[in-house]
Amino acid sequence: MHRFITELYPICRSITGEGVRKTLALIREHIPITVCEVPSGLQVFDWTVPPEWNIRDAYIKNSAGERVVDFRASNLHVASYSVSVRARMGLSELKEHLFSDPEQPDLIPYRTSYYEPAWGFCLAHKQLLALPDDEYEVCIDSSLEPGHLTYGQLRLIGRSSDEVLISCHVCHPSLCNDNLSGIAVATALAQRLSGMNLRYSYRFLFIPGTIGSITWLSLNQTRVSRIKHGFVMTCVGDAGPITYKASRRGDAEIDKAWTYVLQQSGDAFEIRPFSPFGYDERQYCSPGFNLPVGCFMRTPHGEFQEYHTSADNLDFVQPPSLGDSLAKALATIDVIDNNAYYFNLKPFCEPKLGNYGLYKTTGGVSADLSQKALLWLLNMSDGQNSLLDIASRANLPWQAVKDAAQALSEAGLLKLAERPQ
Amino acid sequence: MHRFITELYPICRSITGEGVRKTLALIREHIPITVCEVPSGLQVFDWTVPPEWNIRDAYIKNSAGERVVDFRASNLHVASYSVSVRARMGLSELKEHLFSDPEQPDLIPYRTSYYEPAWGFCLAHKQLLALPDDEYEVCIDSSLEPGHLTYGQLRLIGRSSDEVLISCHVCHPSLCNDNLSGIAVATALAQRLSGMNLRYSYRFLFIPGTIGSITWLSLNQTRVSRIKHGFVMTCVGDAGPITYKASRRGDAEIDKAWTYVLQQSGDAFEIRPFSPFGYDERQYCSPGFNLPVGCFMRTPHGEFQEYHTSADNLDFVQPPSLGDSLAKALATIDVIDNNAYYFNLKPFCEPKLGNYGLYKTTGGVSADLSQKALLWLLNMSDGQNSLLDIASRANLPWQAVKDAAQALSEAGLLKLAERPQ
Amino acid sequence: MHRFITELYPICRSITGEGVRKTLALIREHIPITVCEVPSGLQVFDWTVPPEWNIRDAYIKNSAGERVVDFRASNLHVASYSVSVRARMGLSELKEHLFSDPEQPDLIPYRTSYYEPAWGFCLAHKQLLALPDDEYEVCIDSSLEPGHLTYGQLRLIGRSSDEVLISCHVCHPSLCNDNLSGIAVATALAQRLSGMNLRYSYRFLFIPGTIGSITWLSLNQTRVSRIKHGFVMTCVGDAGPITYKASRRGDAEIDKAWTYVLQQSGDAFEIRPFSPFGYDERQYCSPGFNLPVGCFMRTPHGEFQEYHTSADNLDFVQPPSLGDSLAKALATIDVIDNNAYYFNLKPFCEPKLGNYGLYKTTGGVSADLSQKALLWLLNMSDGQNSLLDIASRANLPWQAVKDAAQALSEAGLLKLAERPQ
Repeated sequence: MHRFITELYPICRSITGEGVRKTLALIREHIPITVCEVPSGLQVFDWTVPPEWNIRDAYIKNSAGERVVDFRASNLHVASYSVSVRARMGLSELKEHLFSDPEQPDLIPYRTSYYEPAWGFCLAHKQLLALPDDEYEVCIDSSLEPGHLTYGQLRLIGRSSDEVLISCHVCHPSLCNDNLSGIAVATALAQRLSGMNLRYSYRFLFIPGTIGSITWLSLNQTRVSRIKHGFVMTCVGDAGPITYKASRRGDAEIDKAWTYVLQQSGDAFEIRPFSPFGYDERQYCSPGFNLPVGCFMRTPHGEFQEYHTSADNLDFVQPPSLGDSLAKALATIDVIDNNAYYFNLKPFCEPKLGNYGLYKTTGGVSADLSQKALLWLLNMSDGQNSLLDIASRANLPWQAVKDAAQALSEAGLLKLAERPQ
Repeated sequence: MHRFITELYPICRSITGEGVRKTLALIREHIPITVCEVPSGLQVFDWTVPPEWNIRDAYIKNSAGERVVDFRASNLHVASYSVSVRARMGLSELKEHLFSDPEQPDLIPYRTSYYEPAWGFCLAHKQLLALPDDEYEVCIDSSLEPGHLTYGQLRLIGRSSDEVLISCHVCHPSLCNDNLSGIAVATALAQRLSGMNLRYSYRFLFIPGTIGSITWLSLNQTRVSRIKHGFVMTCVGDAGPITYKASRRGDAEIDKAWTYVLQQSGDAFEIRPFSPFGYDERQYCSPGFNLPVGCFMRTPHGEFQEYHTSADNLDFVQPPSLGDSLAKALATIDVIDNNAYYFNLKPFCEPKLGNYGLYKTTGGVSADLSQKALLWLLNMSDGQNSLLDIASRANLPWQAVKDAAQALSEAGLLKLAERPQ
Repeated sequence: MHRFITELYPICRSITGEGVRKTLALIREHIPITVCEVPSGLQVFDWTVPPEWNIRDAYIKNSAGERVVDFRASNLHVASYSVSVRARMGLSELKEHLFSDPEQPDLIPYRTSYYEPAWGFCLAHKQLLALPDDEYEVCIDSSLEPGHLTYGQLRLIGRSSDEVLISCHVCHPSLCNDNLSGIAVATALAQRLSGMNLRYSYRFLFIPGTIGSITWLSLNQTRVSRIKHGFVMTCVGDAGPITYKASRRGDAEIDKAWTYVLQQSGDAFEIRPFSPFGYDERQYCSPGFNLPVGCFMRTPHGEFQEYHTSADNLDFVQPPSLGDSLAKALATIDVIDNNAYYFNLKPFCEPKLGNYGLYKTTGGVSADLSQKALLWLLNMSDGQNSLLDIASRANLPWQAVKDAAQALSEAGLLKLAERPQ
């Protein structure tokens, strides 16, 4: 995953343009996503698909003709969606178009101006202070023209047409945790799920933030009701503990599944209630949709110093964190995909487990666990408690619960029940 | 307010009589209350309006003719509703009618005998112990005769006939916190609300404790269903933090509003569950009425040492506390009066706030707050969450929420919804 | 109770056989239980009533003819349900049938083999280690033949045919806390309840663990719906604080009653949620029955070192603990039997208690308590809150609440209501 991030890192992405296309092409080398192109100007709910932005080069040259700020050195140097400019100006006029962060004077900040025509350069505050009074040549060789908004999607077909949505954004330039980490983990997750026999169909979206999810929702209104669970994935590569932000519903199955998986893991974690700030869960959880979609992160955006600066680089995302994020997403999907309601077919007193070869057949701790799982499942399986409910209440590992459900089903002691309304 | 308390302090009030009338007359100099007279003997639910009690003078003279206990020095010296007496007696016989508090030997306690014909004097325990054996002349020049129970009420007419009830008692003699403070703050509150354009009608009651609220409820049974919110106000002048005692319902809107206002204030406070002890909330919250009426206090009755003694005097109630009580009552009324449910008219994805001039139009912290309020309101306004619910959940100041609701309504993004049943 | 335990201690009990019959005969000297005999081979739900096991003698003799392990010294020496054996063997062969606990090397562990034909001896680990290589004569003079499963029951007939179930097991040999303590306290409890005028009928079961409750439930399926409350009683004689394990429902009236009684007691206690491990509550709380039956213990099984060893002896159970267990069971039954819902017949404002002779008629703390109880009952009695709900909420002693309910009923202020559905 870190290697994939390294490949994606140099590309200058924005909410439209060639950077997104190149990114999707690289994703396509790993998983067979479909690339969709939506024309500029299309009305999507309250929004309009913007013109497409592309940039070839940009710089500020001093009077000696040296590039003192150079887009080729870092694509963060140009504010995203900057209009084309070619001009000469003194320092004071130039400064109106220069952005820096005095609080982190060594770092280049990340800036955008999607919906106001403007141009600007971003640079380290130290460099800004050191710029001498001079006549500068400014060049942004960009275009902002009718074109397309591009996104990728992959649908893994399961036994049911009900879907699990996994969404990440692809609109950030050379920023690793936000959100190349999400792209890399989502890609790896899709690869892992590809070979599996899954109950749900899994829809992966690789979209520009905000306008991408709005566009997708607008074009797929009739499919939205199929989404039974989902999560947005962002900032999943830093070294911090996992933060899961619950869906607007707060007690959706996906919220319970993440909570259970994180509790079982023994690692530090935080569950946060929904708030209407953040990433594309804002759109999925808008009141008209109110989808059961949470947000899976490590350190949330804006809560790490490197956020939206040149320090969110290849060193900031770490292979073990990426691996742990992938493992926990897989564990959560294992819970969601296998969760079910059962009826105990011998609900009067305990069945005599020995009759079915289920009585402490092996010794040791895991035998004890599996015995516990059998008894909990028999006791709670009245069609109202899911496996996840039982596992959470009994504090049992998921594998023990899954195995027990299978053993009891094979023994004719449990029967699958309809999901209660 | 403290000046008004100073004016009211010398008057000898009880549950009926001239003291109440004088008090109401002084209130009437500030707000146009209606004074109601209910005849003695009227049956009000399980109770009977008592005869009217008036007192002109009372004393205990020693054999030298000196007034050793003198009603003119403190009206606490006579137990309220003492029947008329004029007699000579020795110390031991007299002592059967003397009340003091050995635990606070310097203070005169407050005593009543409303429903048993009796008489008595209250005095400092030190003075009681120092009384020499002597023949004393005892005089209570009082009358207990058919008359009236007197109370005052003021109805500020709002846009709706639904009412907010604010009730305080007027039956205590020279006791400041319990409850001249309530009278003063209620009067000031009524003055402040007078000029405002309010949704609810506001009914202020200035009544004798217990029998007054029972009488009012008995005479106004058909109006009771109009009372949508309310609170009793007592002991609101001492230096302690605010205590709000919830209504019997426990989760009434008034309970949530007080909780929210006190949480937002940053000051120390306590929320207590309902109990059937205390002031007139006992009657408003009797199970047949079960009105959403709480009780707003600073230090609750019986929990400050000065309670029902001569130390509950003009020094014990403090202008800053009175001011703070008034401010918090006003803040709570602002919440109640402006609370409403809305529907987001563009519930699918977030509306593009820039289209309505609502996107971070100004900088700074308050811009951030107002942006948050806009997004919370849009997300939660599905007709089920009130502004108060949203403000509480999002921990937002009321003004930000009110302003956002107005801005979004004007932008056509929110529409008022019916209150859900 | 401790004397009774001393009488019961030497008997070799198991899930069937003469030991159970002798135990029930001794119980019958105190309370008129009916003894029921259920034939071996009867199908009871998923189980079969096992053959009857009886044992006359058992020993291991060394080559010198000395009994080195002797059933007559402790009936724990023989694993319960050991088949008959008479053989000579060397130490290594013998060891396959010897059970000891290396972690408690001085104690004889307790072992059973109900459903696998096998034989074994239990002994202290120290003794096991000290056994010399020798030829041993092994004898278990037992029989395992079609016979009966025996249990005792007592039904105290109350005013209603609705029942409270109190169940304890009688299948453990010389083990005092688990569960002669349960037998002794249940017997004493039945004696105490015998003379009383009770609302509910009380059914006491003295049954072998697991198979006994399964058998009883199987034979009494039509009567099960009469059981409105109940608890299993086990390990109630040790010095630890009380542990109450809630019924599967978790909020049954019996769960609330035990919680309230333990809270009021001022003693340390623990309330645990239901789990499908433990004693016969596993069967009563199987999902097909889901009876409101909890489990009353002091230190739970497996959580005291003496559990299922020879150290669970007459010293381990203590008269004060037995007395406390009896007292708390009686207190809980007092709550359950007298709990009721009432309507306040004067629900509009408080009734004037003086009119009914109920206004602070006596002084002191208990007068204050009884006044509080009157006001709480009047305020909360709207047919939805039981006396137990009110007592719990108001933190009032049960006697005060019962007395207040009676006084208010006699005064015509409260009327019994139907239990809400």
